[in-house]
Amino acid sequence: MTPSDFDVVCLGNAIVDVIARVDESFVARHGLVKGSMNLIDEERAELLYSDMGQAIEVSGGSAGNTAAGISSYGGRAAYFGKVKADQLGAIFRHDMRAQGVSFETAAATDGPATARSFILVTPDGERTMNTYLGACVNFTTADVDAKVIEAAQVTYMEGYLWDRPEAKEAFKLAAKIARAAGRKTSITLSDSFCVERHRESFLDLIRNDIDIVFANESEIKSLYLTQNFDGAMQAIAKDCPVAVLTRSAAGCVVVDNHKIHATPAYPVNKVVDVTGAGDLFAAGFLFGYTNGKSVAQSAQLGALAAAEVISHVGARPEINLQAHSKALGLL
Amino acid sequence: MTPSDFDVVCLGNAIVDVIARVDESFVARHGLVKGSMNLIDEERAELLYSDMGQAIEVSGGSAGNTAAGISSYGGRAAYFGKVKADQLGAIFRHDMRAQGVSFETAAATDGPATARSFILVTPDGERTMNTYLGACVNFTTADVDAKVIEAAQVTYMEGYLWDRPEAKEAFKLAAKIARAAGRKTSITLSDSFCVERHRESFLDLIRNDIDIVFANESEIKSLYLTQNFDGAMQAIAKDCPVAVLTRSAAGCVVVDNHKIHATPAYPVNKVVDVTGAGDLFAAGFLFGYTNGKSVAQSAQLGALAAAEVISHVGARPEINLQAHSKALGLL
Repeated sequence: MTPSDFDVVCLGNAIVDVIARVDESFVARHGLVKGSMNLIDEERAELLYSDMGQAIEVSGGSAGNTAAGISSYGGRAAYFGKVKADQLGAIFRHDMRAQGVSFETAAATDGPATARSFILVTPDGERTMNTYLGACVNFTTADVDAKVIEAAQVTYMEGYLWDRPEAKEAFKLAAKIARAAGRKTSITLSDSFCVERHRESFLDLIRNDIDIVFANESEIKSLYLTQNFDGAMQAIAKDCPVAVLTRSAAGCVVVDNHKIHATPAYPVNKVVDVTGAGDLFAAGFLFGYTNGKSVAQSAQLGALAAAEVISHVGARPEINLQAHSKALGLL
Repeated sequence: MTPSDFDVVCLGNAIVDVIARVDESFVARHGLVKGSMNLIDEERAELLYSDMGQAIEVSGGSAGNTAAGISSYGGRAAYFGKVKADQLGAIFRHDMRAQGVSFETAAATDGPATARSFILVTPDGERTMNTYLGACVNFTTADVDAKVIEAAQVTYMEGYLWDRPEAKEAFKLAAKIARAAGRKTSITLSDSFCVERHRESFLDLIRNDIDIVFANESEIKSLYLTQNFDGAMQAIAKDCPVAVLTRSAAGCVVVDNHKIHATPAYPVNKVVDVTGAGDLFAAGFLFGYTNGKSVAQSAQLGALAAAEVISHVGARPEINLQAHSKALGLL
């Protein structure tokens, strides 16, 4: 393989998280399904926001969180995503760059505002996401910088992009460029409802264009319409060279060319907010994978990053993951 | 006294806090004085922001934090402060109202953006604030709603307003209206550097127009140009009917018409970020004071609110202080 400028380039919806604690009654009152991600329009965004308590704002977006995590491990990450040229867009860009991520996608100068996701955290630490895509609707094939894709060992994309035809086309173009350059491609299935919406085309994509799939237990079961995790694991092993399957506190199973590696979850004193757990697992794994670590070591780095991010509010690491993992003897 | 619609109306700079963890070298590199509040212009704001790491955004502003705390205790709070009609302004307004605070000051439609304070938290939990006042420069006497002042038991104002002549005039007008309506007036001295800048006019104000002064140890010492806390306490007792003097972990001393009440600090497991400690102490005290509690009880409520806010990042309570204090038998 030719030398790479980046370990990973991440494509996703560029979103600022608006995080508030709510009680169970809020979830019930607004007819939300706990633990899911819901796409909402501007009107519903205003309704939910007006009923939410005091919030904090923090840059998020699934693939954005992953890029930040890779960079926190000392990896070389780039990001493609669309913000508007507004205050929240400037915050998002600052936070990506402050973490060391290369983020050059032009901001939209008109159209909807930078995307927000209202993340409602219930007392059990579970989170329900309500995403107003805003400026993300302007993410298209024009935002796919072939030079960056060709210079990255892995092109990683969030399944959420599939919810908009233009973003889906951008995703497919990026995968095609990556494969043509002899690079690897990767997808996270994002959310079981997202899998519901796109099962057939996800399967088609994975079978033909993807080298590494990330999914949690409910997503992989949904993909193969089964309640049986082992069955789903055997199915994905046939469909994709590498599958990284996370199971919350039960840890992770990586299927690498039909070989199975199980890794326990990293212990956490108190789960404060599970937002970003999957994103940071992917970050740790991809950092390891693109830096010569074994599959088992890579999964350990994923588990460590996930444990850090669920121990506080917000979906990006609050500490330097490279220093943290070195202190623990994992790097 | 006639019936009141509000317990307290708070006047202050309407600011969104941008909070980031930094190491000691950042503080040194930018020539900052740890623990202080610095006013910065837009250019310096951009410089500091570009060098800061990933941040979280959360509504703040000293008197805004106090209003939020009073409301969290179940008190009736109103707020006057100036944001711009932009995204951060909308966030600030949402957060005030979500906490139950009445906030009707019109947003500026042109001029500088909503104010931001870069709050840099060092590993010791200490914070250094760098405030770009932005839209706050448009806060004037026109924003003082006499009806609200007349309907509030206490008009509370942050000393930081003194840094701008127009805001100082608004402050003086509010005090005059409050006194004319038979209401009480209150000020927090805000910061020892703020006292440095305005010592003589603060003293003049306190001696003539203020019923309740809030200050921490360094502020009250600075006011009377002494290194002796007891001396400063005796001086303020002569100058103002009620003085609430906070001393961090050493607790609080209230001088109420020459009677001294000492209250210990409420224990905290781990100090995460001291931002808002004084603001929340004032909130608890003023809630108690305007709701028939004794001075000692009011100080206890102040200590409890301060302990809550320094146990997490951000300067507003993350829990309901009314429920919290009831559970502890303090209400």
